[in-house]
Amino acid sequence: MGSEIQEIKNTIVQRLPNRVQVAKVEFEGPEVVIYTKNPEIITENGDLIRDLAKDIRKRIIIRSDKSVLTEPEKTIDRIHEIVPEEAKITNISFDEVTCEVIIEARKPGLVIGKYGSTSREIIKKTGWSPKILRTPPITSEVIQRVRRTLRKNSKERKKILQTLGNRIHRELTSENEWTRLTALGGFREVGRSSLFLQTTNSKILLDCGVNVAGSDDKSSYPYLNVPEFVLDDLDAVIISHAHLDHSGFLPYLYHYGYEGPVYCTTPTRDLMTLLQLDHIDIAHREDNPLPFNIKHVKKSIKHTITLDYGEVTDIAPDIRLTLHNAGHILGSAITHMHIGDGQHNFVYTGDFKYERSRLLEPAVSKFPRIESMVMESTYGGHDDVQPTRNDAEKELVKTIYRTLERGGKVLMPVFAVGRAQELMIVLDEYIRHGIIEEVPVYIDGMIWEATAIHTARPEYLSKDLRDQIFHMGRNPFISEVFHKVNGGNERQEIVEGEPAIILSTSGMLTGGNSVEYFKQLCGDERNSLVFVGYQAEGSLGRRLQKGWKEIPLKEDGKTNVYNVKMHIKTIEGFSGHSDRRQLMEYVRRLSPKPEKIMICHGDNYKTLDLASSIYRSYKIETKTPMNLETIRIQ
Amino acid sequence: MGSEIQEIKNTIVQRLPNRVQVAKVEFEGPEVVIYTKNPEIITENGDLIRDLAKDIRKRIIIRSDKSVLTEPEKTIDRIHEIVPEEAKITNISFDEVTCEVIIEARKPGLVIGKYGSTSREIIKKTGWSPKILRTPPITSEVIQRVRRTLRKNSKERKKILQTLGNRIHRELTSENEWTRLTALGGFREVGRSSLFLQTTNSKILLDCGVNVAGSDDKSSYPYLNVPEFVLDDLDAVIISHAHLDHSGFLPYLYHYGYEGPVYCTTPTRDLMTLLQLDHIDIAHREDNPLPFNIKHVKKSIKHTITLDYGEVTDIAPDIRLTLHNAGHILGSAITHMHIGDGQHNFVYTGDFKYERSRLLEPAVSKFPRIESMVMESTYGGHDDVQPTRNDAEKELVKTIYRTLERGGKVLMPVFAVGRAQELMIVLDEYIRHGIIEEVPVYIDGMIWEATAIHTARPEYLSKDLRDQIFHMGRNPFISEVFHKVNGGNERQEIVEGEPAIILSTSGMLTGGNSVEYFKQLCGDERNSLVFVGYQAEGSLGRRLQKGWKEIPLKEDGKTNVYNVKMHIKTIEGFSGHSDRRQLMEYVRRLSPKPEKIMICHGDNYKTLDLASSIYRSYKIETKTPMNLETIRIQ
Repeated sequence: MGSEIQEIKNTIVQRLPNRVQVAKVEFEGPEVVIYTKNPEIITENGDLIRDLAKDIRKRIIIRSDKSVLTEPEKTIDRIHEIVPEEAKITNISFDEVTCEVIIEARKPGLVIGKYGSTSREIIKKTGWSPKILRTPPITSEVIQRVRRTLRKNSKERKKILQTLGNRIHRELTSENEWTRLTALGGFREVGRSSLFLQTTNSKILLDCGVNVAGSDDKSSYPYLNVPEFVLDDLDAVIISHAHLDHSGFLPYLYHYGYEGPVYCTTPTRDLMTLLQLDHIDIAHREDNPLPFNIKHVKKSIKHTITLDYGEVTDIAPDIRLTLHNAGHILGSAITHMHIGDGQHNFVYTGDFKYERSRLLEPAVSKFPRIESMVMESTYGGHDDVQPTRNDAEKELVKTIYRTLERGGKVLMPVFAVGRAQELMIVLDEYIRHGIIEEVPVYIDGMIWEATAIHTARPEYLSKDLRDQIFHMGRNPFISEVFHKVNGGNERQEIVEGEPAIILSTSGMLTGGNSVEYFKQLCGDERNSLVFVGYQAEGSLGRRLQKGWKEIPLKEDGKTNVYNVKMHIKTIEGFSGHSDRRQLMEYVRRLSPKPEKIMICHGDNYKTLDLASSIYRSYKIETKTPMNLETIRIQ
Repeated sequence: MGSEIQEIKNTIVQRLPNRVQVAKVEFEGPEVVIYTKNPEIITENGDLIRDLAKDIRKRIIIRSDKSVLTEPEKTIDRIHEIVPEEAKITNISFDEVTCEVIIEARKPGLVIGKYGSTSREIIKKTGWSPKILRTPPITSEVIQRVRRTLRKNSKERKKILQTLGNRIHRELTSENEWTRLTALGGFREVGRSSLFLQTTNSKILLDCGVNVAGSDDKSSYPYLNVPEFVLDDLDAVIISHAHLDHSGFLPYLYHYGYEGPVYCTTPTRDLMTLLQLDHIDIAHREDNPLPFNIKHVKKSIKHTITLDYGEVTDIAPDIRLTLHNAGHILGSAITHMHIGDGQHNFVYTGDFKYERSRLLEPAVSKFPRIESMVMESTYGGHDDVQPTRNDAEKELVKTIYRTLERGGKVLMPVFAVGRAQELMIVLDEYIRHGIIEEVPVYIDGMIWEATAIHTARPEYLSKDLRDQIFHMGRNPFISEVFHKVNGGNERQEIVEGEPAIILSTSGMLTGGNSVEYFKQLCGDERNSLVFVGYQAEGSLGRRLQKGWKEIPLKEDGKTNVYNVKMHIKTIEGFSGHSDRRQLMEYVRRLSPKPEKIMICHGDNYKTLDLASSIYRSYKIETKTPMNLETIRIQ
């Protein structure tokens, strides 16, 4: 047993009431777990545990010693006695390894109870520590899959966490002399984001994305083949958000033998699992398989440690991690790292939106300390100013209104995660208020699954949405206007049917059902095609934006030409990225001000433009590293 | 046998006359060695070999097959018959491993003969390939030691070269995608220079110095503990010049198991051996031993490949190295690297002087191509303008003249390598012309040995000096005005004797005999102390420059105070570094112009000042990396 855990155990035993019998204290990942024969005594002393956690600067988990557990059958009965029926428990299962009872419920708040009273009662009456999960109002296959994977591999998971715990709490071999960042991908470009942070003692990878538009492996994957990146030495991977250009290469690490942890929010874990599985699937269908498969996605799930916003966690002996809301998509995070003992504070914004959207709160701009920062610049060019959200919505409503009025259908190709849900809330809102006629809104493909994941994590949504869901009992995602499309026949019916709004992937008409809808709808001038997201050069979407009227498409080996008569409309202002004004405003509002800002995630000229503007406006040193360059931050 | 050497052998056999029997063709380091039973036929076809070398783009060495060698006794007789007596052969020995006869002579040119005729005659008559070395007019212990080490380890040396040859000519595993530079020491500072160049395929270390003024290991040694620096993967080390801040850490690499080559000029090998041995010696005496010892200096010698200026050499499958005169000290080099097949050309100036000095030609500023450059900035501040060499000499002569006139002695503390020899030539010149009175010039300590090394390599001296030595038969280093000081008694006689000039180390009065002279001479106001080199903050030299008149010095455990009455004079303009004007002028004259210049080897503000001046004046992108930062150059 390491000296640190021994010291912690001594402190715990000293501080707990004499009656408490501490059976075991051990690290489980970043947390300290106390196994005891009297869990009820501890759980009744909430303040004591909070103080203790503060003193040892670790999160503490209480678990019962196996000897005091009630048998499962009886436990289930007791839980049903304790928890009110309105909680709508959908499943109860047991994890014998961690001595947890996993309770899935429609209203998990009622299983927890006021200030945790119900949850404590369960421990007291059964010995089992309740792990309470939300049963989403829309069933998510991905969440079921993730939960199943974790349940089935509980023993392995515990071992992973114990190994990790010892690694995190290893003794420092030398003083921290320096911290440096190496750009491994997504610098002076968009795609394959990856940033490698090294201190004298630790090594952390921030994001691990792929460039889905890359023409070959070299331009698609981050530069993980640099000599300083040694997989065995890696302490942690942090994923800022689920989009593939930030998470898509993660399974590859596990394929190549990575055995360490991934830190991210719960929605990020679930959404990236969805997107990674879809990516593997598409690559397989296109006969261009990726260097990793489902097995490695599962391995990634088993190694993931989810963190809530604001939760401070040790991830290496000299690094504390905190994730904060980034406002970009559900679960997207700004990464704050405290390095050494007050030596340096580093912030990586990832992709962020500094404006309140329908879905999310604006990105966090206040931190306890920051000395250096890496910041995105997708819309960093001086002319990248977008309409306000309000104007964008007005424009959208106008377009839909006119289309429906002339008896047409509205096709909106959207990316499954983020924009789709934002639009759903907008559409629900305007239909509910009668501003848009009540027509069916068809949700096709992966969007439905992504939406299901949104319904499982309401805590991550904007305050307005949370209020609607929790206090007004109204969840816009399960509004009756939305219809899930279940297959080819239904699609035909929709196309031939009454006026409607269709949300379908892919967002740039590069494949998927949005292209199928397009083929069927493009010939009718009553219909509208509405773009709300970025259309990359070379995509069908981009060609249509440019005004092409004859579109040749390959089908079953031959090329058919489609004549485009439908209206083509592009609406800006729905982006999940901060526009130029918001980027500059974010730096202005940053508190405290960093000494150095490095710019990433933007085309070359936007990166340079934003860097020089920030320097000129705020006199903060800026850097614009290229991929493969290393910057010293401390 | 690798496919490349097989291909080369085929080409050679095809191109040589039918009569030539090629016994073996192999790589020896970067060179191709042909073993033959008829070496005379090949050597008589000089043009053929030159053409062949050009075609295969390798240097070719011809050696005899063992079966055709004349026996040693008889060979010695034949050599004495062939070589004219004026050549003054001092030693003949045999290397049975390489089938070379090593001929040491006072006038090696006469052993070579016109266009190599005498040398060819030796091969023809004896079978042995002559390796001709200069016997310096002043005996150098270091050169003797180096030659002995190489002679004694001939077999091991051959093995090292063969292994290296195969490594250099290995097949490329992937295309060259990028080249980057990591600053490991000597950036935004002076001392511990070290620069790490990495391509997709190769890894090269440029310089490997120590900061002799460093307070601890961390500030004394380069950052070789970064994760990207893996000793086993290193293809080559290049040493720009002998000073310890560029070469002092080299033995450490061998201590830690490096088995690869070091490339430098011959004078650099010899001078750095002198300085490294002295460094080990001093550290030992000060009871602060270094992490390496004499054994590792020897290992370094065995792995050194010396190159002449302008000689193009493969050092990795994708890198060709050429060294050019840097004008800083004897053998100092500007490193030019050609990377990939025309992909990139990189220049590292090392320390350089862009002005003709007495000793050396100015630094080379014309290259076939340059895309990027790392450049020193020791005197890069806008106010770092130094007097011309001419003014500096006048000032020196005036000071000496006045001191001698009043019956005093001139003490000049100097660094052993570089400034000392420059001054010797100046003094010889002015004494010879009667401008300075003919008094003895005493040469104390390591200066004599360093001077001996200078006399062994006249080819590296300035054209004026070479003309004096070769054509006018006058070597200023062996002028009668110079007297080697052999020990303590002599020192006492000098101090008590007639007016004289004394050159002694250390250059900053931080130890060594210069301090002993100072103690004896400081009390007499007729004497002068003349500084011609940089005096670091904290050194006794610096204190005296500041005007201290009472100097406490520890002797045998107690502190004695010395009253300074001698004149203290600082003369600028003798530096081996380019001053600010010369640095700017060098960039102006560079041909072709690089796209990017990175600045090293200067205090923080001088680095930044020079970088911004170069950018403003010439519109060349400049960078000022910190230690541990990585810059991509291609």
